[in-house]
Amino acid sequence: MSENRPQQIVLASRPQGEVSVDNFRLEPLSLPQMADGQVLVRAEYLSLDPYMRGRMDDRKSYAPPVAIGAAMEGESVGEIIDSRHPDWPVGTVVTARTGWRSHAAVVADGLRRLDPAAAPVTTALGVLGMPGFTAYAGLKEIGKPTHGETLVVAAASGPVGSLVGQLARRAGARSIGIAGGAEKCRALIEQFGFDVALDHQAPNLAEALAAACPDGIDVYFENVGGAVLDAVLPLLNRFARVPVCGLIAQYSGASTDGPDRMPGLMRDILTKSLTVRGFINYDLAQLYPVFLQEVGDGVRDGSIRYREDIVDGLEAAPAAFIGLLKGRNFGKLLVRL
Amino acid sequence: MSENRPQQIVLASRPQGEVSVDNFRLEPLSLPQMADGQVLVRAEYLSLDPYMRGRMDDRKSYAPPVAIGAAMEGESVGEIIDSRHPDWPVGTVVTARTGWRSHAAVVADGLRRLDPAAAPVTTALGVLGMPGFTAYAGLKEIGKPTHGETLVVAAASGPVGSLVGQLARRAGARSIGIAGGAEKCRALIEQFGFDVALDHQAPNLAEALAAACPDGIDVYFENVGGAVLDAVLPLLNRFARVPVCGLIAQYSGASTDGPDRMPGLMRDILTKSLTVRGFINYDLAQLYPVFLQEVGDGVRDGSIRYREDIVDGLEAAPAAFIGLLKGRNFGKLLVRL
Repeated sequence: MSENRPQQIVLASRPQGEVSVDNFRLEPLSLPQMADGQVLVRAEYLSLDPYMRGRMDDRKSYAPPVAIGAAMEGESVGEIIDSRHPDWPVGTVVTARTGWRSHAAVVADGLRRLDPAAAPVTTALGVLGMPGFTAYAGLKEIGKPTHGETLVVAAASGPVGSLVGQLARRAGARSIGIAGGAEKCRALIEQFGFDVALDHQAPNLAEALAAACPDGIDVYFENVGGAVLDAVLPLLNRFARVPVCGLIAQYSGASTDGPDRMPGLMRDILTKSLTVRGFINYDLAQLYPVFLQEVGDGVRDGSIRYREDIVDGLEAAPAAFIGLLKGRNFGKLLVRL
Repeated sequence: MSENRPQQIVLASRPQGEVSVDNFRLEPLSLPQMADGQVLVRAEYLSLDPYMRGRMDDRKSYAPPVAIGAAMEGESVGEIIDSRHPDWPVGTVVTARTGWRSHAAVVADGLRRLDPAAAPVTTALGVLGMPGFTAYAGLKEIGKPTHGETLVVAAASGPVGSLVGQLARRAGARSIGIAGGAEKCRALIEQFGFDVALDHQAPNLAEALAAACPDGIDVYFENVGGAVLDAVLPLLNRFARVPVCGLIAQYSGASTDGPDRMPGLMRDILTKSLTVRGFINYDLAQLYPVFLQEVGDGVRDGSIRYREDIVDGLEAAPAAFIGLLKGRNFGKLLVRL
């Protein structure tokens, strides 16, 4: 069985603009010698996330790029199958930064222990993992929606956006979700309880958004960039907050053809007393325990919903990741190994 | 004497781009009938400030525009010469929103009582008034410079920038001031104690700024926009803060010729976890009492310095204001009536 043959996907070449499958290479993997304090994890589910696009470029960012020939970075849920650490016995189910690998020897200190009885283990990569925490921390620390306010989020059927919408409604705010296509928009209303769902594939997004926000926008949770931001800016209210956790629309390069929109953005920031603040989830790690408690309770009692999009086999990861960058996934994208 | 002939300056026409003296008109003023609760103030010093440029345009902003034919808005220091309010007797020295007028009947509730023995009354329009409070509140609430950090501010010989630099140094930060010309740069060092003064009229501002900031920039106090912002952006550190209180370089219109710099700005905000936040001083009015105490003490004991640029006669206000927008003033610009 393929899961017994260790393998990995490495970065074969850096993308020029859009990512192609040729930028990746599937390779056999030799199991490493383990050092004291390490454990060997066999990955069961690999998380695919937009931030990985940034690691493929040789540009300065908050984390160094993946080297050519090195395994793509990433987090998995898996089982410890060998251990050189007394606190982490064989059989423990954990999240680990394995990269895009079937097996990885990792230092135990970075692991998170999972209780498969408490919640499906895949949630540790989605609603109860990094994407969910990004939604929670960005709202708690920056967005701060309050009763009667209006919040807008794009990629709203994804693992960040779908939780942003649900948490905004819990805070008493109206939530407007933007997604691609009728099926996703239906899920926004029926599964995630958004007040309004807008299809960014339909013409006249700006007009539709304006009509959906008669009292303007108080929080725009930015994970996309591009055309959605253009539609949002004129509608922002005084003292609006814009947490910025992602810009997926420009990860493969953004056109810098004019007009220059920066003077207009700065004017809006000044005249409307806007707060525009970028964050990486681990900037706000102090909120992690309360997030796990609060959102974990919601997942367990069914009041917080989530959706997963699972593909099979490590070899499927490159095409699935490219689909993610184009918005083809529908829910949290995972690779089952 | 002209000060006994009431007069005012009204907005004669809206500027198309840059302001010209033809946009203003000096008119005789009939003293108004006073209502109960009002006082009549004779203005002694009128404050000229960059925000007034915004009021000349018929564009949505945080305050409504001045109507054509109406007096330009503004704040003065003056004396109460008639009173219909028991708490505000004739002879009291106050700040009042008189507009560009020699005399104004105003509601007493908006007045601030001044003690000419405590500090020169003109400081109530500068270092101890709106510009000083803008510097103080923007640093206290948003910029938050700490020991060992690097702060940059432009228009650094003006009433906002000069206090920003001094307060940054009090907090233990290095302060880099940018101003136009050798004389102003000398004052930055000798009068205001900046660590480094850079002349934006010299070539290669970006290179000079990079050399002056070997550890990057942690706080950029934005009151200018334009070329200074371009030079600052690549130097901002992770978690840098950008309070935005003004954009004087683009008040008369900014070129939107490409390239489009917005995607790059958003990428910096994301990958560096930047906070870019606009504010108007009165957004943060709760800080006013502690500002008056703290900066007032510094002015009285001489540890906080300030500089004034005074022109004579209301008829001089239009040309002086145009000079302000071009950076020709040297210190807080006031019109002595």
